[in-house]
Amino acid sequence: MHLNRKEFLSLSGRAAAGAALGAWGLLLPEAAFAKEVLDSPEVRKVHEIIMRSKADHIRKVQDDLKQPSVSSWNMGILEMAERMLAHFKAIDCKETAIVKTDGLPGVWAWYDVGAPKTVSIYMMYDTQPWDEKRWSSPPLEARLVKMDPFQQVVMARGAINDKGPNRMFLNALEAIIEAHGRLPVNIMFTCDGEEEQGSPHFHQVLEPYADRLRRANAHLSTGLQQDPEGNIQMGLGGKGILYLEIEAHGARWGRGPQKRPIHSSRKAILDSPVWRLIEALKTLYDPAADKILVPGYYDAIRPPNAEEKELMGVLTSRFKGRLFGSERENVKAWMNGWSEAEAAWHLTFDTTLNIDGLWSGYTGPGSATILPEKAAVKIDSRLVPDQEIAVQKRLILDHLNAKGFGDLDVRQHGGGDEWSQTSVKQPVVQAVLSVYKKYGIEPQIWPRRAGSSPEGQYTRGLGLPAARGGIGHGGRAHSDDEYLVIEGNGKVADFVKAEQAMVDTLYAYAHWPETRGAAGA
Amino acid sequence: MHLNRKEFLSLSGRAAAGAALGAWGLLLPEAAFAKEVLDSPEVRKVHEIIMRSKADHIRKVQDDLKQPSVSSWNMGILEMAERMLAHFKAIDCKETAIVKTDGLPGVWAWYDVGAPKTVSIYMMYDTQPWDEKRWSSPPLEARLVKMDPFQQVVMARGAINDKGPNRMFLNALEAIIEAHGRLPVNIMFTCDGEEEQGSPHFHQVLEPYADRLRRANAHLSTGLQQDPEGNIQMGLGGKGILYLEIEAHGARWGRGPQKRPIHSSRKAILDSPVWRLIEALKTLYDPAADKILVPGYYDAIRPPNAEEKELMGVLTSRFKGRLFGSERENVKAWMNGWSEAEAAWHLTFDTTLNIDGLWSGYTGPGSATILPEKAAVKIDSRLVPDQEIAVQKRLILDHLNAKGFGDLDVRQHGGGDEWSQTSVKQPVVQAVLSVYKKYGIEPQIWPRRAGSSPEGQYTRGLGLPAARGGIGHGGRAHSDDEYLVIEGNGKVADFVKAEQAMVDTLYAYAHWPETRGAAGA
Repeated sequence: MHLNRKEFLSLSGRAAAGAALGAWGLLLPEAAFAKEVLDSPEVRKVHEIIMRSKADHIRKVQDDLKQPSVSSWNMGILEMAERMLAHFKAIDCKETAIVKTDGLPGVWAWYDVGAPKTVSIYMMYDTQPWDEKRWSSPPLEARLVKMDPFQQVVMARGAINDKGPNRMFLNALEAIIEAHGRLPVNIMFTCDGEEEQGSPHFHQVLEPYADRLRRANAHLSTGLQQDPEGNIQMGLGGKGILYLEIEAHGARWGRGPQKRPIHSSRKAILDSPVWRLIEALKTLYDPAADKILVPGYYDAIRPPNAEEKELMGVLTSRFKGRLFGSERENVKAWMNGWSEAEAAWHLTFDTTLNIDGLWSGYTGPGSATILPEKAAVKIDSRLVPDQEIAVQKRLILDHLNAKGFGDLDVRQHGGGDEWSQTSVKQPVVQAVLSVYKKYGIEPQIWPRRAGSSPEGQYTRGLGLPAARGGIGHGGRAHSDDEYLVIEGNGKVADFVKAEQAMVDTLYAYAHWPETRGAAGA
Repeated sequence: MHLNRKEFLSLSGRAAAGAALGAWGLLLPEAAFAKEVLDSPEVRKVHEIIMRSKADHIRKVQDDLKQPSVSSWNMGILEMAERMLAHFKAIDCKETAIVKTDGLPGVWAWYDVGAPKTVSIYMMYDTQPWDEKRWSSPPLEARLVKMDPFQQVVMARGAINDKGPNRMFLNALEAIIEAHGRLPVNIMFTCDGEEEQGSPHFHQVLEPYADRLRRANAHLSTGLQQDPEGNIQMGLGGKGILYLEIEAHGARWGRGPQKRPIHSSRKAILDSPVWRLIEALKTLYDPAADKILVPGYYDAIRPPNAEEKELMGVLTSRFKGRLFGSERENVKAWMNGWSEAEAAWHLTFDTTLNIDGLWSGYTGPGSATILPEKAAVKIDSRLVPDQEIAVQKRLILDHLNAKGFGDLDVRQHGGGDEWSQTSVKQPVVQAVLSVYKKYGIEPQIWPRRAGSSPEGQYTRGLGLPAARGGIGHGGRAHSDDEYLVIEGNGKVADFVKAEQAMVDTLYAYAHWPETRGAAGA
């Protein structure tokens, strides 16, 4: 089903005439065309294969989950990388490689059948560690168990984050190949074995393939996006993040205790690095006014553009009262008494200066009388377009120097993630939306997520539009009893439907008429 | 050797005529009389008994050290209390009692032979716990070992803090009784089984005996005061201490995360209890100016009196360049560039506001992105005459309320110790100084220690003058390989001499002519 341009125009004309597809105000007319594709016999044939391969597909997920791959323990990473390589060979990738880095290796694979479009796919293949005694089912056994409110889940470390969904996507690809001999798109896979470490070397995985990756048409993430109620939040980008640790130490300062804590009575005659850190922090941020005091910190921020404003309008009107889900039970009031809509706006467009951790001296029960020789803080700043990590970091350093705090030790944790942004009009986004539409799911579409991810390496680093989409559900990532839903609760898609939707997304995108980047990034 | 007033006047006349004893500028003429007493056959006889009882005395120290008494583990406390009771019965105390409290019990004992003077003695009989694998000799075996630079020490938990010195004092008392059938003073013993917990219930030990304790003439501590070089620092009192823990919590504030940390991206729309705590702290103290900003915080402070100024003059001239010993290696410069003498002055007379500990959120390695729901700080304030704990605490609370921080949780740790002060002219102080003089040791005499102790319960609570004195050495209190010196290094007194000096102190005080309190407290 490789439609030509003429056939497409015929279909999209029908879409423009239709009303239902435009209901969210965000679907382009071409979505009508996607609907035709998704209802096509070609796609239905793949769906049938997935349905009858269910037992085999579940077993393949379990097999991957039984292979440990804990980056922080350096346990099973190489074996898991080899498994990924085997998976990519099994679908006839024309290139596969273990990619060495200064840390644990990544994996590269290129599926190329000369299709008109090429999709970039990211996979992480490491997991968090675990504390087995806290699990109700052993984290490496990947048992199928009942777990309220779901009829059946597979329980294992990596079940949802991300080894389960990765293997489901490969299952979906194998079903397509079984049905039609080839995929409707070319795919470039780049895989990270250190995601749980903050992907410190992932740029070294991308770098050798950057020229090829730049020629891809879009970057796609196909994880399972439904929460337990079946709802989906979709962000068309993310904020950047600068993460700093700042330490005041008597030895660098030349004042206060120099080597170790001293008896607290000495506060009468010695300066305190703890009070000094507090003094420095108060020059950075005024909490009462919610104002970052670093000169120039807001200068690079561009105002929300027309599309972003339109997206916020749709979001806050269609999801009024439902924008913030379960997190509301941990919140009594938003800052400055903001309404839900105002909070959504500030969450999307504001930069931040947050304290993640703060410590000095004795923090145990009861009392200890010491004047500590050092104090430290971890802060993170979320960055919005067009704030850049290096620039904002420099502003903070210059400010601390100007205020006389040049002796503070300021270290950046990781390279940070730059902000990322893709237009809702991008075909890869529209393809995802079309699939949600097919399954009757209206997602919350936020101009960007308030959080951060390495997506910017693909969007801003390689120039690809990016979208994240998928139905189905799993949970307890990073915690005990991590799970992936096999049979749902009537609200979330089950395992089979989630794989089928992955097929849909590939087909919707493969056949979406596009000139890459024409709709603006 | 109970001299009458006439005999004393004769002796003290001789002292006034002598020059040597006045060398420090702080010994009263009566010290000449003490010298006679300390050279007397009566005292020499006791010294001889101590010398020939050495092996037995060491064994008795070892026996007490082999009995564990760890208050934090509630291990052996009752057994140790019973041992103390047996010790007091062995010297024919007329009253002995285990004193129940809301916590672990104390011990009371009253030795009364109708002597003209009564001394109050405090003993703690609990110890810190231990980590046995870190010890070079098992902490409960109390072995005699070589430990550089000392020829022989007894190594055990409690060796110096305070079970070793306690038993040495009892050894000294037994030697006196063996020599002369009775002690030259009456003694009221009050013993604490929770000192290492901050003596939370010790007031309940004192309370039933307060009326009797008030009739004592002085409170005396006879621990081993020499540092490894043989030097002694003597403080004629101590500062008070107010210890507070202040917590900011979203739930009490009604802003920020309410129950648990939230994703750090939420800083864009949520207030931070961490920033709030910092905001509150900066209203308490200005580190650049070293100024406590709580209104009225300095109001109760009385200026140094004539005696205190004189003591500081003697101290800073006679110990120029030697006031701060080994702690100097942890200090590069005093606050405000103060000289040693200036630092000594401020250390003695200034109140403080110190941060002992500070914590919030994620404090481990690497990064975690959270907005914590709470933050806390431990602060201590050293109080000088006439600052009272309750008053200073109220000032801080009122200030925080006035500044809008009424939701902060402010808890006091322990009741705190009030400041304590005894005049250098008090006979019990002079008696201690006379003994130091006898052994050729000139102590650093500070008007008060910068630290705090429960001594105020005896001085201000019960109206007793107090002194702390003794020669000999032990170390590593609270650490592994705690020790008590048996045979020294040529600089510190050995075990026998330390016990002999305890005898001296009792005799010097017993025969010191006094009208209690006449010299002012």
